[in-house]
Amino acid sequence: MSGPPPIITLTTDFGLQDPYVAAMKGSILTINPAARLIDVSHAIRPQAIEEAVFVTAAAWPYFPPGVIHMVVVDPAVGSTRRPLALRTAVATFVGPDNGVLSAALSDELRPATGDSASPVGLPAGYRAVSLANERYFRSPVSTTFHGRDIFGPVAAHLSLGVPLEDLGDPVERIVALPPFRARRQPDGSLRGRVLHIDAFGNLITDVRVDDLPSRGAVIEVAGRTIEGLSATYEPGADLRAVTGSSGYLEIAAPGGSAAAVLKAGLGLTVVVRAR
Amino acid sequence: MSGPPPIITLTTDFGLQDPYVAAMKGSILTINPAARLIDVSHAIRPQAIEEAVFVTAAAWPYFPPGVIHMVVVDPAVGSTRRPLALRTAVATFVGPDNGVLSAALSDELRPATGDSASPVGLPAGYRAVSLANERYFRSPVSTTFHGRDIFGPVAAHLSLGVPLEDLGDPVERIVALPPFRARRQPDGSLRGRVLHIDAFGNLITDVRVDDLPSRGAVIEVAGRTIEGLSATYEPGADLRAVTGSSGYLEIAAPGGSAAAVLKAGLGLTVVVRAR
Amino acid sequence: MSGPPPIITLTTDFGLQDPYVAAMKGSILTINPAARLIDVSHAIRPQAIEEAVFVTAAAWPYFPPGVIHMVVVDPAVGSTRRPLALRTAVATFVGPDNGVLSAALSDELRPATGDSASPVGLPAGYRAVSLANERYFRSPVSTTFHGRDIFGPVAAHLSLGVPLEDLGDPVERIVALPPFRARRQPDGSLRGRVLHIDAFGNLITDVRVDDLPSRGAVIEVAGRTIEGLSATYEPGADLRAVTGSSGYLEIAAPGGSAAAVLKAGLGLTVVVRAR
Repeated sequence: MSGPPPIITLTTDFGLQDPYVAAMKGSILTINPAARLIDVSHAIRPQAIEEAVFVTAAAWPYFPPGVIHMVVVDPAVGSTRRPLALRTAVATFVGPDNGVLSAALSDELRPATGDSASPVGLPAGYRAVSLANERYFRSPVSTTFHGRDIFGPVAAHLSLGVPLEDLGDPVERIVALPPFRARRQPDGSLRGRVLHIDAFGNLITDVRVDDLPSRGAVIEVAGRTIEGLSATYEPGADLRAVTGSSGYLEIAAPGGSAAAVLKAGLGLTVVVRAR
Repeated sequence: MSGPPPIITLTTDFGLQDPYVAAMKGSILTINPAARLIDVSHAIRPQAIEEAVFVTAAAWPYFPPGVIHMVVVDPAVGSTRRPLALRTAVATFVGPDNGVLSAALSDELRPATGDSASPVGLPAGYRAVSLANERYFRSPVSTTFHGRDIFGPVAAHLSLGVPLEDLGDPVERIVALPPFRARRQPDGSLRGRVLHIDAFGNLITDVRVDDLPSRGAVIEVAGRTIEGLSATYEPGADLRAVTGSSGYLEIAAPGGSAAAVLKAGLGLTVVVRAR
Repeated sequence: MSGPPPIITLTTDFGLQDPYVAAMKGSILTINPAARLIDVSHAIRPQAIEEAVFVTAAAWPYFPPGVIHMVVVDPAVGSTRRPLALRTAVATFVGPDNGVLSAALSDELRPATGDSASPVGLPAGYRAVSLANERYFRSPVSTTFHGRDIFGPVAAHLSLGVPLEDLGDPVERIVALPPFRARRQPDGSLRGRVLHIDAFGNLITDVRVDDLPSRGAVIEVAGRTIEGLSATYEPGADLRAVTGSSGYLEIAAPGGSAAAVLKAGLGLTVVVRAR
């Protein structure tokens, strides 16, 4: 064999205490024993499609080209939502057609901010198929565990070099979520929300670092005001607004948990004004 | 080297925050640096042998033939229980002789439903040895961490092709748990219990899908009655009885947690009647 | 390629629900797709340097020689603490210069027990460099995620055979924590503390098994007295003092959690006297 073994990454809401992740991995390795399996997260909250998009989007760009990314958060497993494989110029994504593959799409391809998840057209350079060729599924296919019976086997076959087109019928539109991007208000401020709370208690918002005022920012969150931006979490201030490593503004409490300090939850409003 | 590297799966109650899993993996890789290590679960509740059997049984059949499955839930580590390696027609299992290797045995080889864990004879096609050859152990062997010092090293040596018989003395009986299978009552109903609660809050019962009434079922659980069976978790009903992907009846609350809705715990009784 | 792929182990406080661990792994695999990545723990409590040292020290010695161990618990990321690579006779360690690499140093190289973390000189056989050569970093380097942008890429380049000296400037002193070792009191007793509570609820103390009285020990903890030492967790006694597999005295409640029984937390005092 030439070159390193193909990489398949895994993002799911399966948790780590149950046999589901391992059954899916076994199913992949039965088809391609040489595949390398890298866990992104199995701790997506149950059926939280948006969180899966956020986490996948913050991880996949750091992988080498040619990787296969499985994203299986699938509340409607076994019903009418289509199973998909989507190939871009740099990677292949496998998962249900419920918005969870949005991380593969650049902002301008996704619905406008504020809209709901909806089908979007794929431009040149993107190819998607609806998974239909049962030859590439595990048999029999259960009605409740497509990670093990469809998505895993398909990813394994893709990692062996099976052409995308052999897997099913081409599709021209896939369901996508709007980009995570705080909206500009009439007064020039940005009005965003907390997208994710990480293990340190940092609040990751949908305010893009690129959208921040170029000179001086004032951040309002949970009745508190933070003056100015920080480049690090270094101790000192009580609360900080940090330009985070994924390109989003974060609210941090150096040495502690901003989520605890602010009693913050997902969706909390964050407003950014120029000073 | 020909062929893909050998796979060793790991199921333990060690948790993921401690150094134990890594020390065991290091111990394996010191002997066979080419071994592939696949975590099944390290979140078995402490010393929960039955849960380890349930999880292992729901994962190992999806792996390719020839895999070595370590199952280390070992409340009596360092005492008189024997360390075992068990080879079947399709896989090899390594772990303590306390019932934890029951997942390797088909139903008819295990004690009758309702009995307690007890030794059972091994038929043709199964070979087991009591691990005794210290040449294949890490040295020195601690009294409290046989995963690192005995089971891991033995699995690593097996993955290098060491014959089972070299590892110790043949044994003819091993401790096994009864199969997970709800009992048929005199009135024809099945009386089962909740075996496992998964990360979604689904209640996985010991009622086998194969044992369900062929036409119409009524399920009673926690004072609630569920009419009919569902093939998916698709939203709609409040509570559903789903024919699960591992072959067991599951109680699910689509879009939520059945465990929370029913305030259910392990062992909760579930009764299934024909309509 | 000759030989098995190089191993990189990972110990962090990143948690497993966020994209951070995967982004770091992707960053490594982009540079060396053949690297083997073994998780030690990502559940170090946020910014708990001492816990990271404890966990790393209990895991790395079980790995084969030549492994690269990344330890990224880094409260001052992006500030003045130096990023380091440290090579010993048996392994290479990569992480911030905040004490977290202490696990690489034998006791006699570390500050005296009771002292605080402080710089120590490196004797012959140890080489360290301050990571400065940006050619071996990811570009651009963020201010808040050096695991992804500096430590991971450097570990990947080391795994490809880049000489340590190419990575930056030699350093002669690195920050280290005192060894974990209970102090001998004037009356001959050992006065220690709880260092770690594992997933079973065992209390791992800083009392070294090697320091225990050779004939008969009496242990006092949380107002309770335990007579004698046990070699196993085997059920029987209410509380046990166990000579643990990592060389430290542990307080265990066989079949239960000593932490729960004693309402114990980190730092709890443990006194050991000869009988």
